Amino acid sequence: MAANKRNRITELGLINCFSRAFKTSNPFIVKGIGDDAAVIRIGKGKHLLSTCDMLIEGRHFKKTDDLSGVGYKAMSSSLSDIAAMAGEPRFALLSLGIPARLKPKDIDRLLKGIKKAARMFSVDIIGGDTNASDKLTIDICMLGFVEPKKLVSRSGAKAGDYIFVTGKLGGSIYGRHLKFMPRVKEAKFLADNFRINSMIDISDGLALDLWRILKESNVGAVIFENLIPRHRDSRSLEESLNMGEDFELLFTIAEDAGEILLGKIRNKRISFPLSFIGKIIKDKPGIYLVNRKNKLSKIEPKGFLHF
Amino acid sequence: MAANKRNRITELGLINCFSRAFKTSNPFIVKGIGDDAAVIRIGKGKHLLSTCDMLIEGRHFKKTDDLSGVGYKAMSSSLSDIAAMAGEPRFALLSLGIPARLKPKDIDRLLKGIKKAARMFSVDIIGGDTNASDKLTIDICMLGFVEPKKLVSRSGAKAGDYIFVTGKLGGSIYGRHLKFMPRVKEAKFLADNFRINSMIDISDGLALDLWRILKESNVGAVIFENLIPRHRDSRSLEESLNMGEDFELLFTIAEDAGEILLGKIRNKRISFPLSFIGKIIKDKPGIYLVNRKNKLSKIEPKGFLHF
Repeated sequence: MAANKRNRITELGLINCFSRAFKTSNPFIVKGIGDDAAVIRIGKGKHLLSTCDMLIEGRHFKKTDDLSGVGYKAMSSSLSDIAAMAGEPRFALLSLGIPARLKPKDIDRLLKGIKKAARMFSVDIIGGDTNASDKLTIDICMLGFVEPKKLVSRSGAKAGDYIFVTGKLGGSIYGRHLKFMPRVKEAKFLADNFRINSMIDISDGLALDLWRILKESNVGAVIFENLIPRHRDSRSLEESLNMGEDFELLFTIAEDAGEILLGKIRNKRISFPLSFIGKIIKDKPGIYLVNRKNKLSKIEPKGFLHF
Repeated sequence: MAANKRNRITELGLINCFSRAFKTSNPFIVKGIGDDAAVIRIGKGKHLLSTCDMLIEGRHFKKTDDLSGVGYKAMSSSLSDIAAMAGEPRFALLSLGIPARLKPKDIDRLLKGIKKAARMFSVDIIGGDTNASDKLTIDICMLGFVEPKKLVSRSGAKAGDYIFVTGKLGGSIYGRHLKFMPRVKEAKFLADNFRINSMIDISDGLALDLWRILKESNVGAVIFENLIPRHRDSRSLEESLNMGEDFELLFTIAEDAGEILLGKIRNKRISFPLSFIGKIIKDKPGIYLVNRKNKLSKIEPKGFLHF
């Protein structure tokens, strides 16, 4: 694989490397590496969705975090990936690396959180693997289904699209990341009532995840600082743009549908927080931010990178 | 969860705890926790199989092992689980925890091994997750399909069944565990030509994995020391019974089918090593071993436990 100047691995380098290494022309694969979940043709009327999310102690949660919250987060991160494809989560496989320090009551706490998140969306845990490890490691593989005509990916954004985001952004890692609500129902509502052109869940920050849509769709975006819904936990614009772990939905829809959605928001016909934040433009992948002084500048999608 | 006397987690305790915690009556789940792979009803003519296998540096492979072998083993372990259900592996999701010490060329080695094993059975890697971690951690979730009438599980062994095992057992962890051939084709041949009553892949040792079949089927077994196919790498009967990582198939079939299979073995009509090792008996789950001096004794299924 290609390396950066210091011969170090980069996350983008890894994903590009994987996409190349595992290239395939299998006609059953509707979407492979590079979206929130893989999409497989399994028969008429439904596609299979599958996604994995690995959480590692010291990286995605602290050793001292309540294990119920950790289990809840592990399951909810995977649920959020299925939501981003407008799918319905159904089954989960649970791989665990368990440190020797954990007692049976700790496992009970962990399972309590996992079960809590699974039950919210009637997900059944059907299997997995357990191992001893130094650091608590939880990998959840989630399976779900989506109607082919409702499937949404990262690659469908078009110039002119309105950009929306659910919820409020920033400051999640101060505590909210262990108890967020995956936007499964909101995604279903949106896909049932609107034609969504592109969607992603914000796991690594608004800027970076927007940039992923732009890159897959080969378009640009203009967003407005004063429209970005900042969470009260967020200490700065920077945190709302780049902190990550928000697990909100970021999506784009055509102008006419966007106007209808804006009307519904104004008339309080949408039951969850939803904000218009900008527009997709005909440009190379890149984000222009209009700040509070109405100055436009190009921003770098920093966000949360794992390496 | 229940603990042992020292308030420590045990593998059996964990699995029992999970089975209870995640109990479900979902009619789409044909087999949930407790078999080599979960089985989901997805439509006429085929079931979906899914399984996860997590490998952790220092536990399942050494830090100094060739990473191509490590990647090969990670993929092959999951392939072996699909084989144990007589299924066809199709798609894999790859979750990685990558230590900072690894260089791009190391990742290339790892991917080389993963690809090698995937290609042998035309498995496509469709997604995954990458993270930084202290120890190299590889979790592979494998998806596959099986015709409902050919599905084999751990729970169908019946008194009178002949017990067979593929390959030779013991000593795998001296090196073979990084290059074994998952028995996907052999399992398909067997399921296509015989009615298999129960099957498992031997990952934790003949004795322990046989015991798992016995427990799920509520029967006992008599096996014969002189019939156990010992690998030349095996230093003792103990290693062939309990060492684990053989990834061979252990299965039982009814007497009449067993006789036909024995005839084929004698006439060299079976293209892979296959040995008759004993019989299923009407008894509580438990293993009786007849040693070389024709003395019968009950053995404890020690095998490889992860805790």
